Amino acid sequence: MDSARETVRLIGLDWGSSSLRGWLFDASGRILDERSAPLGILAVRDRRFDRVFERFCADWLAERPTLPVVASGMIGSRQGWREAAYLATPASLDALAGALLDLDEVAGRRFRIVPGLVTRSASGAPDVLRGEETQVFGALCSSANTATTDDGVDRLFVLPGTHSKWVATQGTTVTGFRSWMTGELYAVLREHSILGRMFAEATDPDAAGAMAAFDDGVDRALTAPGALAHLLFTVRTEGLLGERAADRQPAYLSGLLIGAEIADALRVFGGRSAASGATPLASPTIVASASIAGRYRRALLRAGVDAQIADGASAAPGLFAIAFRSGLLA
Amino acid sequence: MDSARETVRLIGLDWGSSSLRGWLFDASGRILDERSAPLGILAVRDRRFDRVFERFCADWLAERPTLPVVASGMIGSRQGWREAAYLATPASLDALAGALLDLDEVAGRRFRIVPGLVTRSASGAPDVLRGEETQVFGALCSSANTATTDDGVDRLFVLPGTHSKWVATQGTTVTGFRSWMTGELYAVLREHSILGRMFAEATDPDAAGAMAAFDDGVDRALTAPGALAHLLFTVRTEGLLGERAADRQPAYLSGLLIGAEIADALRVFGGRSAASGATPLASPTIVASASIAGRYRRALLRAGVDAQIADGASAAPGLFAIAFRSGLLA
Repeated sequence: MDSARETVRLIGLDWGSSSLRGWLFDASGRILDERSAPLGILAVRDRRFDRVFERFCADWLAERPTLPVVASGMIGSRQGWREAAYLATPASLDALAGALLDLDEVAGRRFRIVPGLVTRSASGAPDVLRGEETQVFGALCSSANTATTDDGVDRLFVLPGTHSKWVATQGTTVTGFRSWMTGELYAVLREHSILGRMFAEATDPDAAGAMAAFDDGVDRALTAPGALAHLLFTVRTEGLLGERAADRQPAYLSGLLIGAEIADALRVFGGRSAASGATPLASPTIVASASIAGRYRRALLRAGVDAQIADGASAAPGLFAIAFRSGLLA
Repeated sequence: MDSARETVRLIGLDWGSSSLRGWLFDASGRILDERSAPLGILAVRDRRFDRVFERFCADWLAERPTLPVVASGMIGSRQGWREAAYLATPASLDALAGALLDLDEVAGRRFRIVPGLVTRSASGAPDVLRGEETQVFGALCSSANTATTDDGVDRLFVLPGTHSKWVATQGTTVTGFRSWMTGELYAVLREHSILGRMFAEATDPDAAGAMAAFDDGVDRALTAPGALAHLLFTVRTEGLLGERAADRQPAYLSGLLIGAEIADALRVFGGRSAASGATPLASPTIVASASIAGRYRRALLRAGVDAQIADGASAAPGLFAIAFRSGLLA
């Protein structure tokens, strides 16, 4: 532990709605220790985030009480510790690092919160993300750690989830992004609509039959863009007419929603790619757990897009890169 | 009542999921009496539909116990009294009248149930309706009662609801239709998703501000077909950023969903119209309550379509026309 005491330099926290993950870094961004707990902001009913933080990091802080801390995710939302205002796109890694919220009330400690991002679509409607910016910078930096230079290359990241995000970058700048309610639509339709009433749990969601149902959903959504609210109803009609087994319907619904997201994303980011002359769409990077990433990769292949899957959690290198650029390690 | 005893000829029932409506007809289709009760099939927990029917129509039956009965709606579904199998499109009024389910167990009485319709979209997915076929035939017949002749004219009917239906007809034949989960999506998103958490009830949903929010939703959905799952998320982002008041968000959500339905419907039925050389899209007929019909008419106008609104409930003339064509009054 003597050597550790010398080298620990930063605590990084990915503090979301349902979970809290933490990493202890050395000066080069190497992870010395990590942990997670179901202590997302929704679980902190008394809003004593300071106490949760002190307890979660107790041994790390005991070792070196003045360790700086950088946190991303919903902890910076209005429902979190304190709101870190959204930064507008285009937003570079340096701009983000320069816009950290200084949570000065954590006495004697440099505690910073990463702001979310805001962008506007052609319609004028705003779109926001919070936490994903750190994952994207992490994915950008994960191979080269803090050494990442702005190579100016166009890239596209796919972050599936309750509110899926596709994030376009150029070098180390987020140029735009777009959200879809894919995961939440799946959950509310399954739990609360007429569609879920006929569902049976698939014994094996990765079985060939379930995958074929998923593919059907993807193909129909890709073939009929704009038909989502109609196609959702076909989950019911196929069930009513005995044309799809109850244990295949969840996969079909999932395919419809993911297919509709991909069709819309290809429309939006396909145009952008053509405009810049680059082809980020040719190989977007999926940032997700293995099973979700596999589904998106499968669905993207049906749309003719060959995506790669980022390895592992990418919040950690993102937190380190942001802290490093902000001067927090100096 | 003596004259009534002479002239009553038919009981018509529109028996849906949540309500039961009934009409007493004379030989020419004139309505002599009518009533309704919250006795939809979901309210009949013991499934003793026979008892509910006898009680609901007790005085009508006392007057003339052998009155024939025709019923449409969910009473003919698997969850209803007995399932009346779906008839495939194209389905003429005469074909439908010839395919009534004979509920022979209602002793000593001719009791018939109108079947629903099934169609298939280009994707191969089935689509169904049950009850709306009777409303459409009612709207077709309401001016001329039973005298309707097959004029071969293309028409388009819009039936908004939990599961909205657009029904295309040629003369007195239903040539096709399409469903959208518009109403149910609105309800589940409002009650069970993150979107509804910020909603406030509009003091007056018809106020200029709420109508402007509705129009915004319609316009955005019409402008970005295929973007529905993204646009839904803008309800939240606009709320988060203070760009739309909480009491305007329900109208905006409603506009997005209705706009997306209309954009998809124009794509599907617009092509059909061009193919047949007719222009049913130029003036579709909305069959709905006044307030819902007004919203759809307003949204359609923003898409450049001038719809007319059918007057009143149209199930009654539909039930009479179907019974007449089936020979049930003979």
